[in-house]
Amino acid sequence: MQIVQFGLGGVGRELAHQLMARRDALAARYGVRLDYRALADSRAALIGDRLDPQAVFAAVAAKSEGRSLADLPASRMLTDPGMLLQGKPGILVDVTASDAISSAMAGAVRAGWRVVLANKRPLSAGMGLFQRLTQAGATRYEATVGAGLPIISTLQSLIDGGDRIERIEATVSGTLAFLMSALEDGMPFSRALLEAKALGYTEPDPRDDLSGADVARKALILARTCGWLLTPEDPAPEALYPDALASVDPETFLGRLPELDAPMARRLADAKAAGAALRYVATVSAAGVQVGLQTLPSTHPLAGLRGADNLFSFTTSRYHERPLVIRGPGAGLSVTAAGVLADIVATAREFRD
Amino acid sequence: MQIVQFGLGGVGRELAHQLMARRDALAARYGVRLDYRALADSRAALIGDRLDPQAVFAAVAAKSEGRSLADLPASRMLTDPGMLLQGKPGILVDVTASDAISSAMAGAVRAGWRVVLANKRPLSAGMGLFQRLTQAGATRYEATVGAGLPIISTLQSLIDGGDRIERIEATVSGTLAFLMSALEDGMPFSRALLEAKALGYTEPDPRDDLSGADVARKALILARTCGWLLTPEDPAPEALYPDALASVDPETFLGRLPELDAPMARRLADAKAAGAALRYVATVSAAGVQVGLQTLPSTHPLAGLRGADNLFSFTTSRYHERPLVIRGPGAGLSVTAAGVLADIVATAREFRD
Repeated sequence: MQIVQFGLGGVGRELAHQLMARRDALAARYGVRLDYRALADSRAALIGDRLDPQAVFAAVAAKSEGRSLADLPASRMLTDPGMLLQGKPGILVDVTASDAISSAMAGAVRAGWRVVLANKRPLSAGMGLFQRLTQAGATRYEATVGAGLPIISTLQSLIDGGDRIERIEATVSGTLAFLMSALEDGMPFSRALLEAKALGYTEPDPRDDLSGADVARKALILARTCGWLLTPEDPAPEALYPDALASVDPETFLGRLPELDAPMARRLADAKAAGAALRYVATVSAAGVQVGLQTLPSTHPLAGLRGADNLFSFTTSRYHERPLVIRGPGAGLSVTAAGVLADIVATAREFRD
Repeated sequence: MQIVQFGLGGVGRELAHQLMARRDALAARYGVRLDYRALADSRAALIGDRLDPQAVFAAVAAKSEGRSLADLPASRMLTDPGMLLQGKPGILVDVTASDAISSAMAGAVRAGWRVVLANKRPLSAGMGLFQRLTQAGATRYEATVGAGLPIISTLQSLIDGGDRIERIEATVSGTLAFLMSALEDGMPFSRALLEAKALGYTEPDPRDDLSGADVARKALILARTCGWLLTPEDPAPEALYPDALASVDPETFLGRLPELDAPMARRLADAKAAGAALRYVATVSAAGVQVGLQTLPSTHPLAGLRGADNLFSFTTSRYHERPLVIRGPGAGLSVTAAGVLADIVATAREFRD
């Protein structure tokens, strides 16, 4: 199986390492041979019939040192991603965070390529693109939601088996889960956020976490996987900061963080008074998607969640009385890359026979 | 894809229903066409190039009414299961609880057949048979452990991706989970068992649950999936009754149940005094398999388990600080059949191209 990989950031480099480390074992086990036909960053690509390991590791090393693939003598400038998708169809892997190759990707699927995504953007843009990419199961995207946790594959199996999804409730942001857990332990919200930032759990501008936008993108992908046709605007996430702080500069935002403490403390106290837990939850059902703070009874699977874990609770026709629940770390380079690699293996096994 | 299904008990009949109900949708979605080439019980088989739905439903109806397939005019006596496995390789589905077709199955795999199992026996017998069946991923067996929960597929993905399994801890018996939960709620063990029996949670002779033998079989399958070569004798499960009650007749056993109350109450009290929970756990690691009662700290994922759910906690190189946890009902006809169907779909998608 020939692989064209776009993206050599943290996940992309880890994926290249894992794939090179596992290819012999996977060939022995499943008779599938995984080779890179191309490795690309946003500017240039290494291209070969089967890139040898030295070339792959040279590309990874260059990117780790902050250089571009364009600096490597063997690379070619990438004027159009489509130039890498000519010839015999293979597996297109997108581990970028951009929209740059979305339209080339749709064309590739039409030509018989399979796609594996860690990039959420192609699936959380227009519904037409989602449908073109996922028709006939052409695209796998486990790592877009919950990183290496088996969320999309589980959901897909339930649906394939004829189960009816009634409701998915999830914490899909480790950062927000960590914040709610710290809040529950008595820490002021501002301090919990600064601690999360120090631990590297937040984006450079923490509003990118607190806005709920990333949670909404994941909820959208879950909903669409269930067959519910939603536009990117449908999930209107609840931001954990007031409008007044939406457009101040990041420095000012961090300085004014303590303004959030009293309102959050009040919401937590209200929940506690009702014997309930306060969680930042994505709820996905046929009725739509809701993303925001929720007060949950203490018996709810999400109420017991501590720390930065993700948790997904699937209530279906068959898992009706008691949900199917999956929980664990939903972020991190190694588990995200492993999620992508598992998708590549599953895809390659389908191509094999 | 042509399917030969052995077994038309509860799971087999539910599977036939689900498959017939889903085949058009699956054909539309993935371009795979699922057809029965044969349906067999222990005595006879319906055979056809593509059995039409009426024939399938007639077979299911006959079995539901307690008749044998041998009573159907269109059936043929099944002298040798191998007679159904001639010709172009397809998918062999074993939803029996017997060893009768194990050796025919190994031959079929050699001839290019793929296998889907809900039957634990072929995988929990000799290690040679396990290896012959699972080489090159020829056999899928999601439903053997945790019914429809995505346990085997998750474990396989972790391993394929190069993760190293350190430890799997699990409650794989809903019956025993229910008993431990009821015990914790203050119910005497004997009463909890009678209640479980009344709810239909136990085997006709409850010692078949209390012996831990079924838990041990599932633990063996998990361990072997990790690549650890164990014999069926390796997991020596702890029985929840004394040797003295092992060979009395079932009536006597039920009559003497209250003898178990004091010892179980004592073990629970000891656990509680240590701030811990008492659970019937299968622990699988490179060091071997342990099956029995364990005292677990209250922070352990298994300690929070209530009711009859199964729970699987995977601690690995990558999920090291915080495990990957999957939880939910691990028994029942509809979820077990759905687990089998998901395996059939995954297998058929590999055959397709």
